[in-house]
Amino acid sequence: MTAQLIDGKAIAAAIHEEVRVAAAELKAKHGITPGLATVLVGDNPASHSYVKGKRQACAEDGLESFPNELPADTPQADVIALVKRLGEDPKVHGILVQLPLPGHINEEAVLNAVPITKDVDGFHPVNIGKLGMKNREPSFEPCTPAGVIELLDRIGAKIEGASAVVLGRSNIVGLPVSLLLLGRNATVTVCHSRTKDIAAVVRQADILVAAIGKAKFVKAEWVKPGAVVIDVGVNSLPVLNPDGTQAISEKTGKPRTKLVGDCDFEAVKEVASAITPVPGGVGPMTIAMLMKNTLRAAQQSVK
Amino acid sequence: MTAQLIDGKAIAAAIHEEVRVAAAELKAKHGITPGLATVLVGDNPASHSYVKGKRQACAEDGLESFPNELPADTPQADVIALVKRLGEDPKVHGILVQLPLPGHINEEAVLNAVPITKDVDGFHPVNIGKLGMKNREPSFEPCTPAGVIELLDRIGAKIEGASAVVLGRSNIVGLPVSLLLLGRNATVTVCHSRTKDIAAVVRQADILVAAIGKAKFVKAEWVKPGAVVIDVGVNSLPVLNPDGTQAISEKTGKPRTKLVGDCDFEAVKEVASAITPVPGGVGPMTIAMLMKNTLRAAQQSVK
Repeated sequence: MTAQLIDGKAIAAAIHEEVRVAAAELKAKHGITPGLATVLVGDNPASHSYVKGKRQACAEDGLESFPNELPADTPQADVIALVKRLGEDPKVHGILVQLPLPGHINEEAVLNAVPITKDVDGFHPVNIGKLGMKNREPSFEPCTPAGVIELLDRIGAKIEGASAVVLGRSNIVGLPVSLLLLGRNATVTVCHSRTKDIAAVVRQADILVAAIGKAKFVKAEWVKPGAVVIDVGVNSLPVLNPDGTQAISEKTGKPRTKLVGDCDFEAVKEVASAITPVPGGVGPMTIAMLMKNTLRAAQQSVK
Repeated sequence: MTAQLIDGKAIAAAIHEEVRVAAAELKAKHGITPGLATVLVGDNPASHSYVKGKRQACAEDGLESFPNELPADTPQADVIALVKRLGEDPKVHGILVQLPLPGHINEEAVLNAVPITKDVDGFHPVNIGKLGMKNREPSFEPCTPAGVIELLDRIGAKIEGASAVVLGRSNIVGLPVSLLLLGRNATVTVCHSRTKDIAAVVRQADILVAAIGKAKFVKAEWVKPGAVVIDVGVNSLPVLNPDGTQAISEKTGKPRTKLVGDCDFEAVKEVASAITPVPGGVGPMTIAMLMKNTLRAAQQSVK
């Protein structure tokens, strides 16, 4: 059996379209354009590329973006002051502080300056706590974890009563996705680097979410036949020539690399019933959910 | 094999003694007596009895308690106003709002009025979120879950790498104890009413925490030989006469009842390596940890 490929690009495109329609409606009815402020400190090329992608999505979905770029040596107090100003700006409905921040800046102190009503990343501890608690509603669900659930829902996977295994317990993926799955009535097991016999634990999963950051870590033999596999990992591997040497790009003259997930995709897809590819699976969902959260923030601002 | 009985009374007594010594030291050095304000709304006899127990513990441990009793029909705004006043009172280091509150009062709104620095119950979403997050420190750990970990530590149970199964996902026990176990590097599975084949899941547990509120729910056959079993359940069962009729207390003339946990204690203790009795296991730990949290709040107030 070959698994159904979960097309994150297509699902993300559908969400962007929904946001576009709702944003246009908000504009028509209330004269409000949802606004996302991005805060980027320093010169990390990956961070610049992520922020660029987010701003581009804003433009395509009819959201306004407010870019803020600060030099790497900006004092922490200045970053916090900026975030507070954005917090008071009525045109800004969501604030995205691109992580990681330079080493001299305390991430927690900066994120705490983001008002809960504008925490479209959903990373504030209050939001994380409420994710797991009964009778509490977080203002926003973190984007990548919410994207994982959205993928499961849109392919019709049954979460309630399923045995869900999450590999990884990071603040931005593993922990919140575990809490979301629990909230949806899955029986949830969280694994990590100290887990013993991880293969045996994975083998029980009806739904497997891999977010451990190790290339091709999950083997086909670990996966229960028919499981739904969501691969959040994004790992860079060298591309090799047929003789085993590093392949070089003719265009750039640089070593060629390819992106792979946390699962041994080619083998696992023969066992799973559905699986996300890397790239093109969870990746596109993160920005789509960020747009959805920013739209929601703007909608809530008129209530 | 018969399991080691985990003597919660003795362990709690040791903690009370530690608190007593530290509180005396704080008084001698800084002239500060740790103060716990209790807020009790209405006439629930169980709530009155819990609050009485907490105040008595304060007296024994050298803490000051500030009782506040309000009639059942107190408007929500008045309860919140009281909590806010206590939040500003420098003699009050911890605020305990006894739950449940009467139906017309929004629990979340009242608890949100407790300043984080005085949330000795540890129930604020910020505290719950930080419990699970890396590189974040909650101001306080919720008392019963912290008591569970303390019991495991004091009997020398190895948490790191253990397979821990938690039955129940309540805000006050199941969820936070799961997050604490995860933070201590256990592989954690959370089960609940929608879990399929709960016996098979329980059978994998090196550490089992039962907090599901169903009398004698966990059977001996479900328990892995040698597992450590922490029974948080407190359920009331009728005491029967030899002929099967309800036994009546000669003293009070009322039906006799007995407290039992979520585990079938007599049978499970023959399989487990260690187990908490009910009563006398986790129960006494809750107040002990509340005293510890109130002491900590007072200590932090002088920093």
